[in-house]
Amino acid sequence: MPELRKDPVTGRWVIISVERGKRPSDFVVRTPPRKKGGFCPFCHGNEYTTPQEILAFRPQGSPANASNWSLRVVPNKFPALQIEGGLGREGEGIYDLMNGVGAHEVIIETPVHEHTLATMPLESVESVLWAYHYRMSDLKRDTRFRYVLIFKNEGEVAGASLEHTHSQLIAMPIVPSLVKEEMDGARTYHGYRERCIFCDMIRQELETGKRVVWENRSFIALSPFAPRVPFEVWILPKGHESHYDVPSEGKYREMAETLQQVLKRIDKTLDTPPYNFVVHTSPFDIEKNDFYHWHIEIMPKLTKLAGFEWGSGFHINPTPPEEAARYLRDARI
Amino acid sequence: MPELRKDPVTGRWVIISVERGKRPSDFVVRTPPRKKGGFCPFCHGNEYTTPQEILAFRPQGSPANASNWSLRVVPNKFPALQIEGGLGREGEGIYDLMNGVGAHEVIIETPVHEHTLATMPLESVESVLWAYHYRMSDLKRDTRFRYVLIFKNEGEVAGASLEHTHSQLIAMPIVPSLVKEEMDGARTYHGYRERCIFCDMIRQELETGKRVVWENRSFIALSPFAPRVPFEVWILPKGHESHYDVPSEGKYREMAETLQQVLKRIDKTLDTPPYNFVVHTSPFDIEKNDFYHWHIEIMPKLTKLAGFEWGSGFHINPTPPEEAARYLRDARI
Repeated sequence: MPELRKDPVTGRWVIISVERGKRPSDFVVRTPPRKKGGFCPFCHGNEYTTPQEILAFRPQGSPANASNWSLRVVPNKFPALQIEGGLGREGEGIYDLMNGVGAHEVIIETPVHEHTLATMPLESVESVLWAYHYRMSDLKRDTRFRYVLIFKNEGEVAGASLEHTHSQLIAMPIVPSLVKEEMDGARTYHGYRERCIFCDMIRQELETGKRVVWENRSFIALSPFAPRVPFEVWILPKGHESHYDVPSEGKYREMAETLQQVLKRIDKTLDTPPYNFVVHTSPFDIEKNDFYHWHIEIMPKLTKLAGFEWGSGFHINPTPPEEAARYLRDARI
Repeated sequence: MPELRKDPVTGRWVIISVERGKRPSDFVVRTPPRKKGGFCPFCHGNEYTTPQEILAFRPQGSPANASNWSLRVVPNKFPALQIEGGLGREGEGIYDLMNGVGAHEVIIETPVHEHTLATMPLESVESVLWAYHYRMSDLKRDTRFRYVLIFKNEGEVAGASLEHTHSQLIAMPIVPSLVKEEMDGARTYHGYRERCIFCDMIRQELETGKRVVWENRSFIALSPFAPRVPFEVWILPKGHESHYDVPSEGKYREMAETLQQVLKRIDKTLDTPPYNFVVHTSPFDIEKNDFYHWHIEIMPKLTKLAGFEWGSGFHINPTPPEEAARYLRDARI
């Protein structure tokens, strides 16, 4: 019998096909290996083809936009939002709109074209996580913005328009609706239990262990109880933290290790599939709080566009998270 | 400058790229023409290959599952939910789950393999809409169910696993989250204005006309103010109706005309793209009401899977709805 499961934070129900669960080999999407040769604007030596860099990691004293970098952040050449201008909030009858003010940046994670977050050195993954932090801290000072959405599209099927590994961020004057829903759900739970729902979830998952993919001292990676897609994985700090934006050196190294472990296991189990990840964190204008817990949501792109799910918010997932977690846990990487 | 627009019902924000708006020719997804030949379980003469029919339109007095049908409804051979059993609601620590009880049916819209909703005779489109009504009315009597989700995946890219045109319905013991969000938003609006927000929207759209795609006496088709995807179209009854499920002959004919007009215009403008549509209606256990207004949401599948949108609920739409409506309105069909 299939199961209907409810995500405890958002209240979203999903169908989990428990009996005829799909195994990794049932999914046949894969990202082709990186092509060598050909022009790539994100490769060493082509710095002049991107907009001027906003942040870069390179030896001290080197000039900006030189070739000796290990990570660069540049404005997106085709930004979804524009950095200049006021919010210009207005109404149009029953409708509300405002200017599309915001920042749209690209984090070029490595100069090495063939690398991915799963295959690059661990220090490089850690650099990426630090870059997220630096950009968030900087953009937070712009009072027009309420949120920085950090995300990664890996593979063309997942929406990446360039092969060279990169993440993106969009700073915006609004809070994305799924984050708002999570905030609302978490606030309600805290209202009657006086506990963080994510902390309760982590406690329960560590007790049963059956949906845990990986853990170290500070982080846990788990298959959520009611995942929307097969092999969805969430990464959360074990201790309560409302914002991504509170770094410490040891912690960021552990976060990098967790992220890379999960991605290596996904690559091994599912033959290097396309995927997306998104960082969910408390909005800028909500202070450090007891009810929301930042985390990363990773969604492999394995199933054919189940289009009606867009129009209904109702998801059918053919792989139970307990099985997905077992495959990922047991992967020989 | 791009615009941030808010859907008045759900409160969801989308980015609309007003300036470098994408025109129809910028989208290059298309559904290949129907292949003739090859075995198709939905074609005339192959009735024995589907599960036994639940409903069929055929000359009176003919036996079930015979070949002289014009429309058939059969159980899905690979159902997402199972029809037998109780709800079995239970908890698992902080989580909630229940048995995956429900009905999953396929509406085979025509015996003619080459037809689509855009190209079949208008009477056949009307039959499809009546079939939705009959199945909803029947399933409503099963007190385990709260909602019937009716949807269509047209084209492989949109999730159709068989080419022969068909819609699907899933009867379920829960309300899909996007419908619930709409209900909540509409209820709140009604709480302070004592009017239906959809009725207000229709009034405003008819006044300005700029987002109207098509209308007849009883129905309006419009590009919503804050569409998630390019060329999204909603079809609504002009008069207030909370449930799909209240038919009248003239009205269903007009609904069929509106649906076919919109799909013909989408096919003409966008070169027969894949698409999804979903019917949003009040749940069974909510009586006829003044705040919610049933409608159909049509979403052409034109853009590369913008994967992070799944993980954030934040949509970027490169085609302003005013332009989409103009193209669809002006299509020479």
